[in-house]
Amino acid sequence: MYNFNLHIPTRIHFGKGTISYLSELKNYGKKVLLVYGGGSIKKNGIYDTAMEFLKSVDIEVIELGGVEPNPRIETVRKGVELCKKENIDMVLAIGGGSTIDCAKVIAAGAKYNEDAWDLVLDSSKITEALPIFDVLTLAATGTEMDPFAVISDLSKNEKWGTGSPFMVPTMSILDPEYTYSVSKKQTAAGTADMMSHTLENYFTMENADCQKFMAEGLLRTMIKNGPIALNDPTNYDARANLMWAGTHAINGNVGAGSKPSWCVHPMEHELSAFYDITHGEGLAILTPAWMEHILKEDTLKNFVDFAKNVWGLTGDDDWELAHAGIAALKKFFFETMEMPANLRAVGITDEKNFGIMAQKACDGSKGSFVPLSKEDIVEIFRAAF
Amino acid sequence: MYNFNLHIPTRIHFGKGTISYLSELKNYGKKVLLVYGGGSIKKNGIYDTAMEFLKSVDIEVIELGGVEPNPRIETVRKGVELCKKENIDMVLAIGGGSTIDCAKVIAAGAKYNEDAWDLVLDSSKITEALPIFDVLTLAATGTEMDPFAVISDLSKNEKWGTGSPFMVPTMSILDPEYTYSVSKKQTAAGTADMMSHTLENYFTMENADCQKFMAEGLLRTMIKNGPIALNDPTNYDARANLMWAGTHAINGNVGAGSKPSWCVHPMEHELSAFYDITHGEGLAILTPAWMEHILKEDTLKNFVDFAKNVWGLTGDDDWELAHAGIAALKKFFFETMEMPANLRAVGITDEKNFGIMAQKACDGSKGSFVPLSKEDIVEIFRAAF
Repeated sequence: MYNFNLHIPTRIHFGKGTISYLSELKNYGKKVLLVYGGGSIKKNGIYDTAMEFLKSVDIEVIELGGVEPNPRIETVRKGVELCKKENIDMVLAIGGGSTIDCAKVIAAGAKYNEDAWDLVLDSSKITEALPIFDVLTLAATGTEMDPFAVISDLSKNEKWGTGSPFMVPTMSILDPEYTYSVSKKQTAAGTADMMSHTLENYFTMENADCQKFMAEGLLRTMIKNGPIALNDPTNYDARANLMWAGTHAINGNVGAGSKPSWCVHPMEHELSAFYDITHGEGLAILTPAWMEHILKEDTLKNFVDFAKNVWGLTGDDDWELAHAGIAALKKFFFETMEMPANLRAVGITDEKNFGIMAQKACDGSKGSFVPLSKEDIVEIFRAAF
Repeated sequence: MYNFNLHIPTRIHFGKGTISYLSELKNYGKKVLLVYGGGSIKKNGIYDTAMEFLKSVDIEVIELGGVEPNPRIETVRKGVELCKKENIDMVLAIGGGSTIDCAKVIAAGAKYNEDAWDLVLDSSKITEALPIFDVLTLAATGTEMDPFAVISDLSKNEKWGTGSPFMVPTMSILDPEYTYSVSKKQTAAGTADMMSHTLENYFTMENADCQKFMAEGLLRTMIKNGPIALNDPTNYDARANLMWAGTHAINGNVGAGSKPSWCVHPMEHELSAFYDITHGEGLAILTPAWMEHILKEDTLKNFVDFAKNVWGLTGDDDWELAHAGIAALKKFFFETMEMPANLRAVGITDEKNFGIMAQKACDGSKGSFVPLSKEDIVEIFRAAF
């Protein structure tokens, strides 16, 4: 096991009705920037409930709606401007990963004197931030308990992750009932996203049994509860298990002590940056292709463990088992979870950008479990085409 | 899944050489109370290394050595007196669970005007505490990342747990190499302790797959690495996995969202309070007897899961599987881990106190998975005799 530092100070309030904890914002100031997406929170009542609790403790609310699914730097800039102009004390995101990521960089940008895109390109420039709060409405990215945010500048076909301890949310409210209205498509994409987070770490957990075995538990949770949530969207326990597993997939607990490389996320970020596709769908399409590409003699044992401990498969032939594990994942994504099975199915109809996307993914990632070259990535894109 | 709140703000520095993080204490004051046990840290060099880092940042050290294996209220009182007399800014424990528990209540007592035993009997009286730091030298109790402490008043045959957010350590240093010198007996007892923490929660994780499947991962980690550490005490990865699994067993992650009752710990606390036996050995002796007592029609499914997912057992007959899971645990504790198999083996040679101990255990616990009466507990003591 490698050395690690771990600090996850986010206060979690999990369960039905925990939105009432919004009244605690009174301890952090008088004026909040409320960040949200396309307005579904106004339809399903979450907005009204939140406003009620904020008003009950005399907090003034300034609003920034309309955050995009792959949140744009232009929206971050708008939020930063509002924070500075209105002397905002704290930022509250109500929404999924995109909304929360946007709010995180707004909170950091509010304490930064130059353009917020600098903070996306160079996280070391984040030296403080306004306190960040959120009410999560989509089980997927785990941003509710981690230091990361991903922001796009589509004018440049760029989508980058950044991270800072100052961007870890102070308090996150996770009410599984708030995910009842999440569509089939987004439920599946969210499940694929959290599985990808776990899998990006999983294959590098040599000698870290504790993290590896917990990761297997998380994967089993997602595999069991994803389909239930898909077909019975108001099943509380399925939504709850999916939500909590999504948080754990990336809050540091299962990632600590290994040296993962995050191969698939950088590849997918290029797809989203060039084609604005749904992140989780891109991950589902790329992950099995990536696995088949890196399955070699020296990675075989990891894939056998994956097949046995995650999928409960048995057999005497290690290679057969390894391939069966990957096949089980494909079946899960593309049949059980009804996701698009290849790049063409999400509207990427030719290979013309594969080279430049591969080059950018390669430049942006910092090494990998099985080192991937530009050529490797093009090959994976082709296999997923 | 039940509602829960979770907040684990402890900063963890895990791995070889992380004791250097002691220099961060300079951010919390100038004067530390150093709490330790029987002096083994002076023999194995940890004391000297710690003093070096503390001196390098000009921290003055006041010492309190001699904390007992079941830490006594008298020692807590001594520490509190020192804190008040010397104007101590923070408390640093170097040792195992007993030393850290003692330091926690000292830190709370330093901010309390009356007798510290009040804080053990009534945790609501803990309203502040000095910052608490520790260097862990035994993988067992998980106190390094939780709000709990257990203190004894042997003059009254009393041993009670208390807990407060103010007693969560600010920073814990976990260097697996510092557990190389832990004896076989204590390695086994520590493994049993962390398994018991996990198991106290495990059977109440109805509908909390995420926590349950992670708990199974923790148990598998302990079952795999406990025997390696026992027989190859300087095996870094075994010590590291055991250490990190022990922390996770009780830091709130796998316990959140269930309603566990903690049956075995209250029973064992009575054994320790009356006979001053090793906590982990008492837990190992009682746990299988407790399981056999609560295995009924309505708990059968949990025991089948335990047999299958933790021990990898298979079979068509649920009752056989359930019993086989318990038998596997017995074999693990009493053969593989070479622990004493019954109460007589730890020097409890007659049944005369069973009644009064059962009554006290019953009064102290707050309900249970399968509600236990005084009579149930006497029966479990007898089965373990």
